[in-house]
Amino acid sequence: MSRTFVTGGSGFIGRRVLAAADTVAGEWHTGGRGARPADLPAAIVWHRFDIMEPPSVRQVMADVRPTHLLHLAWLDATGGRYWQSVDNIEWVEASLRLAREFARAGGRRFVGAGTCAEYAWTAPVLSEALTPTEPSTTYGRCKNALRILLEEFCGLSGIEFAWGRVFWVHGPQELPTRLVASVVNAIREGRVAELGDGDRRRDYLHVDDVASAFLALLAAPDLGPFNIGSGEARAIRDVAEAIARRLGRPDLVAFGARPTVAGDPAVLVADTTRVRRLWRPRFDPAAALEATLDACLGAGRDKAGGAGS
Amino acid sequence: MSRTFVTGGSGFIGRRVLAAADTVAGEWHTGGRGARPADLPAAIVWHRFDIMEPPSVRQVMADVRPTHLLHLAWLDATGGRYWQSVDNIEWVEASLRLAREFARAGGRRFVGAGTCAEYAWTAPVLSEALTPTEPSTTYGRCKNALRILLEEFCGLSGIEFAWGRVFWVHGPQELPTRLVASVVNAIREGRVAELGDGDRRRDYLHVDDVASAFLALLAAPDLGPFNIGSGEARAIRDVAEAIARRLGRPDLVAFGARPTVAGDPAVLVADTTRVRRLWRPRFDPAAALEATLDACLGAGRDKAGGAGS
Repeated sequence: MSRTFVTGGSGFIGRRVLAAADTVAGEWHTGGRGARPADLPAAIVWHRFDIMEPPSVRQVMADVRPTHLLHLAWLDATGGRYWQSVDNIEWVEASLRLAREFARAGGRRFVGAGTCAEYAWTAPVLSEALTPTEPSTTYGRCKNALRILLEEFCGLSGIEFAWGRVFWVHGPQELPTRLVASVVNAIREGRVAELGDGDRRRDYLHVDDVASAFLALLAAPDLGPFNIGSGEARAIRDVAEAIARRLGRPDLVAFGARPTVAGDPAVLVADTTRVRRLWRPRFDPAAALEATLDACLGAGRDKAGGAGS
Repeated sequence: MSRTFVTGGSGFIGRRVLAAADTVAGEWHTGGRGARPADLPAAIVWHRFDIMEPPSVRQVMADVRPTHLLHLAWLDATGGRYWQSVDNIEWVEASLRLAREFARAGGRRFVGAGTCAEYAWTAPVLSEALTPTEPSTTYGRCKNALRILLEEFCGLSGIEFAWGRVFWVHGPQELPTRLVASVVNAIREGRVAELGDGDRRRDYLHVDDVASAFLALLAAPDLGPFNIGSGEARAIRDVAEAIARRLGRPDLVAFGARPTVAGDPAVLVADTTRVRRLWRPRFDPAAALEATLDACLGAGRDKAGGAGS
């Protein structure tokens, strides 16, 4: 029987992984510095530990002896500061240590969270096999270096290693800096949602689909990097307009109110050939956006409810 | 005034750096798990610490508050095991932690030791600006990933970062697996020195020249990677034959006794344009080899003497 430990289990993606974990046999464990989250499903075991403290990591790995590790934890993403934060390097260090303690405790399969920002953004379709990994941000460089080091470590330690490269994600409890939440919040407060030209097209996936892709990567025997995306590029304009229509305030979305970032590619989309052998998204893109909107609206009406739980 | 901390100060290169440090103004510190080495120059301060133990690293950095860090320590190179050892990854982790504690203690300039194995070995001349970094060994991949992460960390922390890529090194107290020592030892024991075809040409530099290059990197304001090599490729056959002639036993060198490694390039040599702006080797190649031979022969005659001290 598998025993899976999930880091970042109270984060945006991790929460949804654990909400869906009851569909998978085996024991599930997670943890963090704080108390057990109220919305954590009863079947999940919570461990109090600090991923930045070596003895704490060693202890929790020795206690649980997980066969599978899903490593989603990374630095606090609030405000988009992770793109250029020096703290990314400390998370590389912490992740290497975690892998080592997982190996020491007898671990068999390590699944990590990467990013589309590992790729050179010089072509619209990003492919594991064909696109060079030439990140242009601190976050991308650190995730890419970590992937290389974890692949090396796992290969030499007899541990299976898979790596999910996450593209753009939306869903319940998303950060207010993310697209859907920022537009919803602006409109509901009667403010103008200020956007770029709106013509950039990106690969958006609902967080529950991202979660089920990670569950598939945990269960499969396949190794290496897998894009986790929808395979479809959607214009930011379309997303924002759909929200504004739903809220009846198309006048509150201002395209061109923010400058277009120089060199920001027109289109970025995942080649999903590889991951589609293991997994398919449950939502179609329009229904996915509606679900996120429902959640954002529900969260606004009833803060205590926890739209994502 | 500068305060320089050297890790790996009792290693092959570090020992020679510290032996030459009295030519440079400022305080010099080093340390390790053991007692102070008998041959350490009196002016160098020795600190007992364990680079693998986070509190120990924090303590020594806080005690010394170095302005400059020369990080030469890496896993035990005995027997060439470092090329594929899983321990390389733990050294990446330790090196990132060291840099963090150096920054926390107010450090200003970090100089690290890289390797020509960071490069793709697809062309004979390896250049910082032109040759892709595509390592094909665990050691090369880990040093390359570490360089990327340290460059990122230092850039974001306001620390100058330079990186010396070491090519082939010979000198006093070299490991018995290295070329000069292995041939000398075989011949002196009346054994045949078994070599490959002897036609591979490599860039060899005397360890004292490697040491003075690192001293130049510490003193300069320049940033980024620097090849540390002679800029000349020397056939392994020439080196081995020079040793055998000196010892009067040309019959004890057998070329072709070991298989040529598939894909091992015919020629590998450093483009030294960049480092030559800061530094020049003191030895000419023939004199350098004679010096190493003298040291190896001296060490054989008088074990207590310590040829390298």
